[in-house]
Amino acid sequence: MKVAGRAMRTIWLAADGHAVEIIDQTRLPHELAIVRLSCLADAARAIRDMQVRGAPLIGATAAYGMALAMTEDPSDTGLDRAAEALVATRPTAVNLRWALAEMRRHLAEVAPEQRFEAAIARADAIAEEDVAINRAIGEHGVRLIEAARRRRGRQGVVQVLTHCNAGWLATVDWGTALAPVYRAHDAGIPVHVWVDETRPRNQGASLTAWELGQHGVPHTVIADNAGGHLMRRGQVDLCITGTAALTGDVANKIGTYLKALAAADNAVPFYVALPSPTIDWDLEDGAVIPIEQRDPREVTHIAGWTEAGERVEVRLTPADSPAANYAFDVTPARLVTGLITERGVCPASREGLLRLFPERRRRAA
Amino acid sequence: MKVAGRAMRTIWLAADGHAVEIIDQTRLPHELAIVRLSCLADAARAIRDMQVRGAPLIGATAAYGMALAMTEDPSDTGLDRAAEALVATRPTAVNLRWALAEMRRHLAEVAPEQRFEAAIARADAIAEEDVAINRAIGEHGVRLIEAARRRRGRQGVVQVLTHCNAGWLATVDWGTALAPVYRAHDAGIPVHVWVDETRPRNQGASLTAWELGQHGVPHTVIADNAGGHLMRRGQVDLCITGTAALTGDVANKIGTYLKALAAADNAVPFYVALPSPTIDWDLEDGAVIPIEQRDPREVTHIAGWTEAGERVEVRLTPADSPAANYAFDVTPARLVTGLITERGVCPASREGLLRLFPERRRRAA
Repeated sequence: MKVAGRAMRTIWLAADGHAVEIIDQTRLPHELAIVRLSCLADAARAIRDMQVRGAPLIGATAAYGMALAMTEDPSDTGLDRAAEALVATRPTAVNLRWALAEMRRHLAEVAPEQRFEAAIARADAIAEEDVAINRAIGEHGVRLIEAARRRRGRQGVVQVLTHCNAGWLATVDWGTALAPVYRAHDAGIPVHVWVDETRPRNQGASLTAWELGQHGVPHTVIADNAGGHLMRRGQVDLCITGTAALTGDVANKIGTYLKALAAADNAVPFYVALPSPTIDWDLEDGAVIPIEQRDPREVTHIAGWTEAGERVEVRLTPADSPAANYAFDVTPARLVTGLITERGVCPASREGLLRLFPERRRRAA
Repeated sequence: MKVAGRAMRTIWLAADGHAVEIIDQTRLPHELAIVRLSCLADAARAIRDMQVRGAPLIGATAAYGMALAMTEDPSDTGLDRAAEALVATRPTAVNLRWALAEMRRHLAEVAPEQRFEAAIARADAIAEEDVAINRAIGEHGVRLIEAARRRRGRQGVVQVLTHCNAGWLATVDWGTALAPVYRAHDAGIPVHVWVDETRPRNQGASLTAWELGQHGVPHTVIADNAGGHLMRRGQVDLCITGTAALTGDVANKIGTYLKALAAADNAVPFYVALPSPTIDWDLEDGAVIPIEQRDPREVTHIAGWTEAGERVEVRLTPADSPAANYAFDVTPARLVTGLITERGVCPASREGLLRLFPERRRRAA
């Protein structure tokens, strides 16, 4: 999508072919900082420190991380160690495990001395596949926005509410939840996005607002607490979020469940965008999804920018008050209107997904 | 309640009898700053700038503000002007209107030269009445905490979730939603409070956490997004919030509705504490409650303290992203298990309240 009028992606091979470059998302929205990843440790740190985040982008970064590891130790042991180091960076990321398994499977068949080139080629393909998947999600999802506009009698602006960042910054390009929004905006359908700020890491306030603004999509940032009120007042036509893991039940950024409850209570359609690599076909139901707990400091402190452009972290709570920081919650399938995948929209159930992905039926049986 | 081991209130007559003193709540939790209010403008500013907040404390401050105005202009015109200036400070505060009407009614019968002394006496009585009401809410509400403990088989700690600050800092003393918690804690019932940080103004993170910590009540600060997850995991025994206006439907701090939805979805009792001066008997239903919109800067910026103890405001959003800031939402009565008043617990309905306050039946008919 566009940044200051020019097309950009979140991760790309450096001009010298020996490293990859990423946007450091911890510096957004105040600074567009490009970071070079030259080795396995760089890639692992970028994921762990959330310079890259979002399930699809984590997957692509892990794939490139495997490639960078091959410049250090292209042996089978090196392959194992790289995968171990990368899988440990974020426990909930399904795409991470998917990308690592894919890279290992692919590279196991290649001689060690050819592994770096083969790994870069496969990582490039994984990145391109992500872009194609998200473009397809946009094509299917824009019909839901068009349907919302028809319900409005083709008048006014379609109001979409989203939570966290499932935009192009969470992927290689296009985004998942925001792909339909970009598609609608680019097609001239008037659309406005209510952006949940998404405490505690504020990915909505910092990332979603930034990428929508750069691409020219009208949007308004709101506190996470405000979405229920807006839905009660009829100011939301549909919700679209991403997901980090899916069984039918949807694991996604903490607070998603509360918005799904409000959508159900007000007959607002609630859609979840998911590229198929995000689907954990082995999970039986949401109760078994592991919920990552992150540093309580993300709740007790917050970072922002002063008027002088200085990044400052400030404490919000009393020094002796403990805090807890659950990263995700699980939204039961009964609250989800539908899933937007690269093959179309389906009910939020294993059966709904298997109808779109019949090749998975045997494994799931 | 206690601050550093000593009993304290939020507002009191200064030792010289010519002014009142308040805790400047915008400086908490990092500094206990006492501010002297000497005139009408001081009192109006304290309410408008939220140095005092919480419906009952706003009411008490307005009452003292009327008294301070009588030192400047004790005429009938002065009385009118003082009430006008004070009513304009916060549109949603029912107690504010109640306290001003009460002061005007009382002072209209007093000769101008005696109005200051009479006003101070009446404001003192309003403050004492608030304390007595909240103490009674605590006595009724502690039974709900005892009931939750019985459901637990008298084992472990009773887990209470609260939103915003409806503690003693929102009143003259005891608080409304937290009065049952203080009562339980002081009686030796093990209780722990999940404190919603309550964006955008973070009254939970800054005020509720501070007052619970000062009084020694175990608590943990969480992002507003986390409460649904905790309820799904069985980690909340009951919710207690305050209210800013009540018809059966409950207007309260933005985000209350989302927690009530989660409580209903997980069969967690959801109680609302309300002193009777908070009740707007003239309202028919929640749809007509005016929702205050506050400065978008409360969403785009946040203030906190650096390690060096300096208060700094930082920007969280892109400079060109707009924000909206709805202060309250309305929780429909169907989601409220019961109302805790100074006369007991009743269903969240006009009829439920009228059974406890039969003297209102004629006016409501």
